[in-house]
Amino acid sequence: MAELSDRMRELVQPHLRGIEPYDPNFTPTKINLSANENTYPLPSGVRERLDAALAATTLNRYPDPMSNSLRDELARRHGVARENICVGNGGDELLFNLLFAFGGCGRTMLTCTPAFSEYQFFADLTQTSVLDIPRDPVTFEVDAARVLAAAPSCDVVVLTSPNNPTGNLIDPALTREVCRVCPGVVLLDEAYMEFADASASALGLLDECSNLVVLRTLSKAFGAAGVRCGYVVAASDIIDAFAAIRQIYSVNVLTQAAALEMVKQRERFSSTVATICLERDRMYAALSEDPRVTVWSSAANFLLVRMANASTVRRRLRDEFSILVRDFSAVAGLEGCLRITVGTPQENDAVLAALDSLLREE
Amino acid sequence: MAELSDRMRELVQPHLRGIEPYDPNFTPTKINLSANENTYPLPSGVRERLDAALAATTLNRYPDPMSNSLRDELARRHGVARENICVGNGGDELLFNLLFAFGGCGRTMLTCTPAFSEYQFFADLTQTSVLDIPRDPVTFEVDAARVLAAAPSCDVVVLTSPNNPTGNLIDPALTREVCRVCPGVVLLDEAYMEFADASASALGLLDECSNLVVLRTLSKAFGAAGVRCGYVVAASDIIDAFAAIRQIYSVNVLTQAAALEMVKQRERFSSTVATICLERDRMYAALSEDPRVTVWSSAANFLLVRMANASTVRRRLRDEFSILVRDFSAVAGLEGCLRITVGTPQENDAVLAALDSLLREE
Repeated sequence: MAELSDRMRELVQPHLRGIEPYDPNFTPTKINLSANENTYPLPSGVRERLDAALAATTLNRYPDPMSNSLRDELARRHGVARENICVGNGGDELLFNLLFAFGGCGRTMLTCTPAFSEYQFFADLTQTSVLDIPRDPVTFEVDAARVLAAAPSCDVVVLTSPNNPTGNLIDPALTREVCRVCPGVVLLDEAYMEFADASASALGLLDECSNLVVLRTLSKAFGAAGVRCGYVVAASDIIDAFAAIRQIYSVNVLTQAAALEMVKQRERFSSTVATICLERDRMYAALSEDPRVTVWSSAANFLLVRMANASTVRRRLRDEFSILVRDFSAVAGLEGCLRITVGTPQENDAVLAALDSLLREE
Repeated sequence: MAELSDRMRELVQPHLRGIEPYDPNFTPTKINLSANENTYPLPSGVRERLDAALAATTLNRYPDPMSNSLRDELARRHGVARENICVGNGGDELLFNLLFAFGGCGRTMLTCTPAFSEYQFFADLTQTSVLDIPRDPVTFEVDAARVLAAAPSCDVVVLTSPNNPTGNLIDPALTREVCRVCPGVVLLDEAYMEFADASASALGLLDECSNLVVLRTLSKAFGAAGVRCGYVVAASDIIDAFAAIRQIYSVNVLTQAAALEMVKQRERFSSTVATICLERDRMYAALSEDPRVTVWSSAANFLLVRMANASTVRRRLRDEFSILVRDFSAVAGLEGCLRITVGTPQENDAVLAALDSLLREE
């Protein structure tokens, strides 16, 4: 990412002069476990139906602004009404729009780091102040008392369950309390929720928590990160606010068609999700027996692992083994940490073997 | 579009309380000539190649943030470098990002109405002040003297060529002068430029006008409104500014693949574009001989037509003939005006016959 030229630093809005874009730090490798993608093939038959749906999609007309066919299928999935769902161009668009609508200059977003770095990026873009209440440095649990004390003066609270990159859940009872005391909106980012127990989701709270916004995505469990389809589930008047400020054609016809097929076929994805969870637990068991590393229990499709010389290990994994993982060791609270996406059994075996080999040397 | 609830009016940023989203005012009809879409079938062979490209696209990985393969093909198309192009999720995303980066609170966008209503919408969203220098009420020509007098104090100038919904061009010599006197950025929206003479484009000015941003789209000439693919061509440091503030995965893998195929096959679209231009000129000739209407010469794929009882005519076209056109008669300066997209010869014949029939009665 190029720095802004002096001329551009003069021309852009002052708060954008030093903006640091999200950097996935991608390098082509044989095994890419850096972005929490789903590395499994699509379930049998899904791709064929999806390709047929794409081939049958009219391209020359503007999309349905609200993706209503997809909305209806998502509503069926979650037992809510169409009016409770807004589809977006990936979760990113919805996160940005949330802060654009409910944050902004003079307003405050509460977040609990370590967390997904785009929250901070979108807060910076929208001039929303950030109140960070760091998680426990050892367990990464949210500091519930401090969050509940601060939430009454916040416009937006962002919680993540399972949290990226630490993998732990938010107790729905805490989410309920935060919603009760926060006068603004509470976003619960459940991008990875399909990998956790069904009871962990806060979707069941929507009836009683009218300021709760639950974010979901097809990027993880559905293996559709490239398709860009996220959605929020919330009270209908919150959905109307999202609808009022969005770019009406932000979800294109191909994404709508592909996502609709995937959500219709959702039962077929359950065996891949179950395998990923088993593989995660196998990886966790192997790594937790290794005295050279610390690994945290995870309800998502990744593991956070702490070790000595993490950056060197990450670089050598990439350069000597063609395995890409994400280096978080420069992030406050994540010193020495790498995040490893759970891949296929073969990919995970390769990671475990390569890590073992490198940790012997480092 | 629902009004915001009282609760949402309290919670959203104050400037968003009264936001009026862009409303395409769509009703299903047999003949839809309301949105300046390309109603022709894709050129022979293009759809097959496009479907094959879609079927070969990996879905589970995040997209290339900058759409580099597509960027390279677009760069070849226009004889510029990859670094001069930023691809967006339709022109909408790029228009929003332009105002988000270079407009904002305390800054001014110059525009010349009647123009595309999204300029005003995005200015409202980003709190950019709008300085409107209306076009000549009879010819719809831009008031060049007033624009050149005002541009030195503007942060963003938006010009449109051909203009939507009036169809007329901006002289590149004027664009050059505006770029010279404006200290900010000058957006030239060329969404419809493929329907005009090649000499009308301002792309040739990019070398000498370092603050010029030319917007193009695949929605019109390429018949890909549903695919959502627009791009800007500009100096590389302007492109870097776009890249710094955008949502990095805003252009999904399916759109990138479809757009790449279309741009590669661009020569095959020339005969459809030529037919649309011939049909436009045929429609123009027919309507300009009709004393009951006023029609403006157009360099785009639509015609602006003024008549008595325009709203009634539009409604009756829809209800009695199942033909949808866009009613602009409530817009200042466009009293009595409908905008009719140029369709296929059959569609255009149907419009001419229905209009003739209704104008006999109204």
